[in-house]
Amino acid sequence: MTKATVGIIMGSRSDLGIMEEAADVLKELGIDYELTVVSAHRTPERMFNYAQNAAERGLKIIIAGAGGAAHLPGMVASITHLPVIGVPVKSSNSIDGWDSVLSILQMPNGIPVATVALNAAKNAGILAAQILGTSDGKIAERVIKFKSDLKNKIEESAENLKAEGYPSSF
Amino acid sequence: MTKATVGIIMGSRSDLGIMEEAADVLKELGIDYELTVVSAHRTPERMFNYAQNAAERGLKIIIAGAGGAAHLPGMVASITHLPVIGVPVKSSNSIDGWDSVLSILQMPNGIPVATVALNAAKNAGILAAQILGTSDGKIAERVIKFKSDLKNKIEESAENLKAEGYPSSF
Amino acid sequence: MTKATVGIIMGSRSDLGIMEEAADVLKELGIDYELTVVSAHRTPERMFNYAQNAAERGLKIIIAGAGGAAHLPGMVASITHLPVIGVPVKSSNSIDGWDSVLSILQMPNGIPVATVALNAAKNAGILAAQILGTSDGKIAERVIKFKSDLKNKIEESAENLKAEGYPSSF
Amino acid sequence: MTKATVGIIMGSRSDLGIMEEAADVLKELGIDYELTVVSAHRTPERMFNYAQNAAERGLKIIIAGAGGAAHLPGMVASITHLPVIGVPVKSSNSIDGWDSVLSILQMPNGIPVATVALNAAKNAGILAAQILGTSDGKIAERVIKFKSDLKNKIEESAENLKAEGYPSSF
Amino acid sequence: MTKATVGIIMGSRSDLGIMEEAADVLKELGIDYELTVVSAHRTPERMFNYAQNAAERGLKIIIAGAGGAAHLPGMVASITHLPVIGVPVKSSNSIDGWDSVLSILQMPNGIPVATVALNAAKNAGILAAQILGTSDGKIAERVIKFKSDLKNKIEESAENLKAEGYPSSF
Amino acid sequence: MTKATVGIIMGSRSDLGIMEEAADVLKELGIDYELTVVSAHRTPERMFNYAQNAAERGLKIIIAGAGGAAHLPGMVASITHLPVIGVPVKSSNSIDGWDSVLSILQMPNGIPVATVALNAAKNAGILAAQILGTSDGKIAERVIKFKSDLKNKIEESAENLKAEGYPSSF
Amino acid sequence: MTKATVGIIMGSRSDLGIMEEAADVLKELGIDYELTVVSAHRTPERMFNYAQNAAERGLKIIIAGAGGAAHLPGMVASITHLPVIGVPVKSSNSIDGWDSVLSILQMPNGIPVATVALNAAKNAGILAAQILGTSDGKIAERVIKFKSDLKNKIEESAENLKAEGYPSSF
Amino acid sequence: MTKATVGIIMGSRSDLGIMEEAADVLKELGIDYELTVVSAHRTPERMFNYAQNAAERGLKIIIAGAGGAAHLPGMVASITHLPVIGVPVKSSNSIDGWDSVLSILQMPNGIPVATVALNAAKNAGILAAQILGTSDGKIAERVIKFKSDLKNKIEESAENLKAEGYPSSF
Repeated sequence: MTKATVGIIMGSRSDLGIMEEAADVLKELGIDYELTVVSAHRTPERMFNYAQNAAERGLKIIIAGAGGAAHLPGMVASITHLPVIGVPVKSSNSIDGWDSVLSILQMPNGIPVATVALNAAKNAGILAAQILGTSDGKIAERVIKFKSDLKNKIEESAENLKAEGYPSSF
Repeated sequence: MTKATVGIIMGSRSDLGIMEEAADVLKELGIDYELTVVSAHRTPERMFNYAQNAAERGLKIIIAGAGGAAHLPGMVASITHLPVIGVPVKSSNSIDGWDSVLSILQMPNGIPVATVALNAAKNAGILAAQILGTSDGKIAERVIKFKSDLKNKIEESAENLKAEGYPSSF
Repeated sequence: MTKATVGIIMGSRSDLGIMEEAADVLKELGIDYELTVVSAHRTPERMFNYAQNAAERGLKIIIAGAGGAAHLPGMVASITHLPVIGVPVKSSNSIDGWDSVLSILQMPNGIPVATVALNAAKNAGILAAQILGTSDGKIAERVIKFKSDLKNKIEESAENLKAEGYPSSF
Repeated sequence: MTKATVGIIMGSRSDLGIMEEAADVLKELGIDYELTVVSAHRTPERMFNYAQNAAERGLKIIIAGAGGAAHLPGMVASITHLPVIGVPVKSSNSIDGWDSVLSILQMPNGIPVATVALNAAKNAGILAAQILGTSDGKIAERVIKFKSDLKNKIEESAENLKAEGYPSSF
Repeated sequence: MTKATVGIIMGSRSDLGIMEEAADVLKELGIDYELTVVSAHRTPERMFNYAQNAAERGLKIIIAGAGGAAHLPGMVASITHLPVIGVPVKSSNSIDGWDSVLSILQMPNGIPVATVALNAAKNAGILAAQILGTSDGKIAERVIKFKSDLKNKIEESAENLKAEGYPSSF
Repeated sequence: MTKATVGIIMGSRSDLGIMEEAADVLKELGIDYELTVVSAHRTPERMFNYAQNAAERGLKIIIAGAGGAAHLPGMVASITHLPVIGVPVKSSNSIDGWDSVLSILQMPNGIPVATVALNAAKNAGILAAQILGTSDGKIAERVIKFKSDLKNKIEESAENLKAEGYPSSF
Repeated sequence: MTKATVGIIMGSRSDLGIMEEAADVLKELGIDYELTVVSAHRTPERMFNYAQNAAERGLKIIIAGAGGAAHLPGMVASITHLPVIGVPVKSSNSIDGWDSVLSILQMPNGIPVATVALNAAKNAGILAAQILGTSDGKIAERVIKFKSDLKNKIEESAENLKAEGYPSSF
Repeated sequence: MTKATVGIIMGSRSDLGIMEEAADVLKELGIDYELTVVSAHRTPERMFNYAQNAAERGLKIIIAGAGGAAHLPGMVASITHLPVIGVPVKSSNSIDGWDSVLSILQMPNGIPVATVALNAAKNAGILAAQILGTSDGKIAERVIKFKSDLKNKIEESAENLKAEGYPSSF
């Protein structure tokens, strides 16, 4: 058993720089997570076990990032009934990210992967919080606060532009 | 107030043929839904109101489908804190679906849209059920059953191939 | 009220390096402008207010730049009746600019965005001048002069090539 | 001299089915237009003359549609100082419309083309009206009315869905 | 145990029309095959078992066809040490075949899939024969004969063109 | 020896519908041609012989059409010193024509192929005439006449539009 | 009058780094050329004059390079009857070169441009030599020699690899 | 005669950095190889001879790498009956690798090339080992060991992440 509600996995340690952003935002939003390396292609049994035990171990959501022919999110989604959030990673062996995006997004009927933008691990973390927020009012409040902070930053940068002399009466 | 937990919206009535598949699978999984037309571009206030009141009216998840420069899912996601599932629709004005996919998927940091495959409204419905299943064991059970049925259909079609004379000892 | 006739907005301060070129060319052509940050996704109300009050505040044209799933130009165009010029920005989260281009260009029937080339904020400024020139002879004259200067620069660089020894009898 | 304020041109008669939508919406909005065939590649002198005399003949805006290696909008824009609206046409010799879009949109600094979506001649007409509306209050009113009608149609189709039994409390 | 040396699998019965061409050419080349449906996404355990037992059951090569986010060939390749030939299928849920191609081709270092052209199940069969021909002279002879027949057909169609009156002295 | 100056070849008889347009325009322009089937992949020796003897047999230009992984134009160009015009054919096994275009166009330094548009065999014929016209004044005259006819057709269709009631004072 | 037989033009001085390779190879092959800057968009009259006088001034072939919405090669081809070789340049304002390639390659029926690979100005020069070689035996000989040198360089580098210890008995 | 069973060829010495990875992994797996430069376009006769004698000289598999309009793998496959593994190389003259991939992958019916991922020469070597392993148990054992090592590395890096403090109970 784990006290984590979100499991973050990635196909290779080289994806850590991107995938850590999911961990960071979950921490910021007060959500427990686990993070490890699980490769669909190099460790298929490990991937199988991870997906098969995820719900039982207490996870509610899985965030999976991979690049190139990125099978990890889709395969995990095929094994577990938990919602799986897929992060297409523009890894070094990717053709400008198109392979990562298409091989995660274009899942067949019956087995969805909730795909976020290329390299958008941060958004994967936020989406996980939104999902948990559907049944946990405190998390929902934190998401609302998070979005309000984003708004404030934009408004601040608008004020800054004015202060720097850019004309605006809005 | 609505008794629906999932709101299905689409940018145009012409998307109904696709988006109805989300409604059908939600019904099959015993989840209440609402379905209406909300256009980000033609009815921006209606879109605003829909997104702003969604949580208050009792919705927990929004499924939004649109094609071409498809702004509906992302704009709704920018206004509500609920999870938004985006369905890229290959509408008649779309360039082979690429515009629909990219303008829904590629959301900036802070505002995720859980994107499913092109025209995959059915998967949007299933994903909604998986999300609700994170806090509702009965729905989770139905998702498990749904996936088990998929498995049975594949195994059945494998049996059928044998019966039709295709050689296989597996 | 503003004395500006052109409003320049961008989804993020990080677009300023590109979008400032619109401001520069408008200044060069003697056209008053405003410039600020308005994010469709992080400040939807601000975006709404900006678009709804633009005509009333005295703006005649809006230039909007954004990248990735770039909804700002199209959403502003959906709210105001003013012509909106869209600048697809190849931001860091963009897939080689394709998402920016398609999510600005491919607007549905009824709500056009006058789209210019990727990162072509300068052309957005010139187009704004051409639009104002349809009813303001002085601005039209300046556009004619601007294009004539471009011609002269090309002819000069042709002369330079000759002077550097590249053969040409034309 | 012409009493038309908008000139509609197309590279080939086969584009008429698409380009006529620009004429139709201009008529609906009470704007005089001219319409003819001008090919950049087959009648370059004609194209030159058209662009060079357009302002003098009284035109204020040119709408140019073409497909494949679509040079008409950009070449006309290089010759006249009037705003040029480009309509990428998915003609039979086009690679899924990509060539039409890119060869119209990606104009170099100095010579913008206000590009609309693939085959979106209707939007070209509306954009022309918006441009004229910047100095003609009556046309601006008609654009506002036009957009309001679009809104009503969406709201009507939302009502129809309810009447047909689709559940919605919004 | 099976007497087949080549196992043909596909993600869905709807791929049979394409994948049968692999079976047909193997039969023509005198190679025993098996054919069944195995879905990576709908029957992950079945896929696992298939791949894990393939060598033991006597198979020497696996031909796997799938479309969309096509994970079957790559996942089978991750589990077995046998060579896997992947056939990207342009299924109905595919974006013009790009997703099928990229999600099969772009495998990470360590786990190759021998990918053939879109829908080219026939070539998958021929490639299997070429592979078996590296250690079986009789199969190699049949491949040589097969290629010689292709040559004859082209030369025949060249003769036919002459007979139909197309000028050629070659 | 042949009296033909242009050799037209294609990878498969199924390309004849497209490639015949090259023959037709050459006939119209009074240029002798040969036409046959030569497959780089199915008849490599035949291709080799064709390319190696082309100049000696009296050909001055080769037009080669092929689809998919289209190697015929480039391979012929690698063997002969004659100019080779490549026609990318959107054959049934092509991915929307992209493979045909890229595998003909993107030749390495040293071995150019004069590539024309997708399926543009007619333009291949005209280009051949233009090339021959560089040393044959009569052929140059026919090209000039051909282009003048194109101009007349456009002007005629402009007149027709007027006659049908489309307004135009140009 | 010019003694040059090949005219090299480019849309902007910034293309000189690429286009100079055409000049270099023509010099190497003993062919007189001219080189200058002609912009279709910034100097349309200059472009018109260049194309209209090219044949009269003694040019036999025009090599035109441009990037982005690259109209120069096609527009020159529309005005002159000389063969025009187009070089798509991956300029800084290009979307990975796709716009340059498509807006040069995809010319309509009647007006071909002999397109070479992205940035392949060297191949444009070689193609010009091949074209001139159809009527000038000495130039044809130099092309044959040029290709033979290429072959020698490859064979040499094969020998070098052996000398460096890479195993090969071929 | 050669004692090598695998022949590695590449279109240009500049591909050596990539293609050497095939050699390295073959050495690691105890398989004899040859490596040389053979250009389809610059040395077509050498390419012909190489392909025609390959089987006779004792080779069982050919690995061919090339970039841009990459004809080497397909042309070699058209001449020999041996299995040919194609490595699309993202060379400097390639459009983001798309040309390399499509011109190797999209071979017509009858002439397959076993294509691996962009730049994936290492996978080409592993695939060659898998092919030889179909008839050589010792090589099959080494492939199994190689894959097991990959698995261990992933599991190790999972352990390392734990040691570095990343939470995980899996």
